[in-house]
Amino acid sequence: MSDFARATAVNRRDETAYDVDLDLGWSIGGRPNGGYLLAAIARAAVDAAGREHPLAVSGHFLRPPAGGPAEVRTEVVKAGRTVTTVRATLWQDERACLDVLVTAGTLPAAKPDHTGTPMPVLPPPQECMSRADTPFRVELLDHVDVRLDPATVPTPENVGAPVVRGWMALRDGSPADELALLLAVDVAPPTVFRLGMVGWAPTVELSALVRAIPAPGWLAFEAEASVVGGGWFDENATVWDSTGRVVAQARQLAMVGRQGG
Amino acid sequence: MSDFARATAVNRRDETAYDVDLDLGWSIGGRPNGGYLLAAIARAAVDAAGREHPLAVSGHFLRPPAGGPAEVRTEVVKAGRTVTTVRATLWQDERACLDVLVTAGTLPAAKPDHTGTPMPVLPPPQECMSRADTPFRVELLDHVDVRLDPATVPTPENVGAPVVRGWMALRDGSPADELALLLAVDVAPPTVFRLGMVGWAPTVELSALVRAIPAPGWLAFEAEASVVGGGWFDENATVWDSTGRVVAQARQLAMVGRQGG
Repeated sequence: MSDFARATAVNRRDETAYDVDLDLGWSIGGRPNGGYLLAAIARAAVDAAGREHPLAVSGHFLRPPAGGPAEVRTEVVKAGRTVTTVRATLWQDERACLDVLVTAGTLPAAKPDHTGTPMPVLPPPQECMSRADTPFRVELLDHVDVRLDPATVPTPENVGAPVVRGWMALRDGSPADELALLLAVDVAPPTVFRLGMVGWAPTVELSALVRAIPAPGWLAFEAEASVVGGGWFDENATVWDSTGRVVAQARQLAMVGRQGG
Repeated sequence: MSDFARATAVNRRDETAYDVDLDLGWSIGGRPNGGYLLAAIARAAVDAAGREHPLAVSGHFLRPPAGGPAEVRTEVVKAGRTVTTVRATLWQDERACLDVLVTAGTLPAAKPDHTGTPMPVLPPPQECMSRADTPFRVELLDHVDVRLDPATVPTPENVGAPVVRGWMALRDGSPADELALLLAVDVAPPTVFRLGMVGWAPTVELSALVRAIPAPGWLAFEAEASVVGGGWFDENATVWDSTGRVVAQARQLAMVGRQGG
């Protein structure tokens, strides 16, 4: 079993509830990464749906859970012919932490009929920064190998447009699967760091589309903010697999960095 | 009361349920427009939250409702200091039609600190197509004035990249408010029509961020598909107000047109 599969494993307890053991190794500054949480919850939702893959995952973040035991409570909202929609909520200590709607089905295997959004030109992973220069402790990077395009590394010396590009792979060498794509859409450091707005930037909502099972190899990602103001920013993320295919798309709403948060 | 406010009005029946009368005037081919439904549901959710505005709205479409009486059942998932998250589900004839998570709060009034995604160059509304050349009856256009950039009008003679741009205003002259932005993100004809893939293209999931209360005047929109394949397509939509400010962003997952659907 891969490191990622173990960290996001869920155990069905009864008809609707799943136990999960949140692993603080997949955290940033002591808070489990949002993409990691979505992956674990989506794993439970897809199982509850009796489907193969998540297609659309919409998470509204209520409060950050601690590490350790937690529960995913699921409700099949509609089981259709092609897709099944499930509400899945992460609970800990009788408090809802993350509420998610998941529509699950089967990802297309064939090459798309049309693709826009070509993969950006990136330096190869070995020429990228292997650990971001950040004031935070990033436990997640013990498990996920993130390489940032030097041109977009957010440092005080590299202020610029709020775009971050790079590569991602799982450190244990296991291939990223469709659930790991939920990690990939949230793995970039907050793009507003490029504007000098550093600090904990909590995700309030993240909606992701999973488009294909990724081919083995590095995933490329690009995250970009369009509107930053009034303490809020959006971040649009696209993930490509090693064949250059778009495999995931997401947009999140987050709060601008809070010092010490 | 504006035409839009009337068509999306909700009446609180008890602690958690709202009555709504779905107006088939806001339909496409007899099915209520997805953005129209999201606007009515978000109106109930924002009221249930005791907040001013929707910030993030994630809708998973289960089955198209008919016109007439329906109910929005709400559940406040978390009332926080800055935002409140509500689950709101549209029910009709004891069947869930559309399940939505809404995070509500207060939209920033000040100009953003940073904005990317500049408004595309569009011909003025009077030089755009005022009713799309489509094989469908579009009841919605009796209430919403949609003007399509001739370069992107989807016709058999204008096959091209799956992008549709244009303008939107409410026909009765009332200004579009923050709820009408949910209409704006879903008002373009399906972008895959530009690829010659016509037919009913049902939305499966649509997640929208509302970023600001729009200034009075025409709204500009751009919708674009990135990946079309296996019967699925995404559509990324951005809406600008008359000052050129980004006021809404959305992405939807939809099924490629089904003839006669």
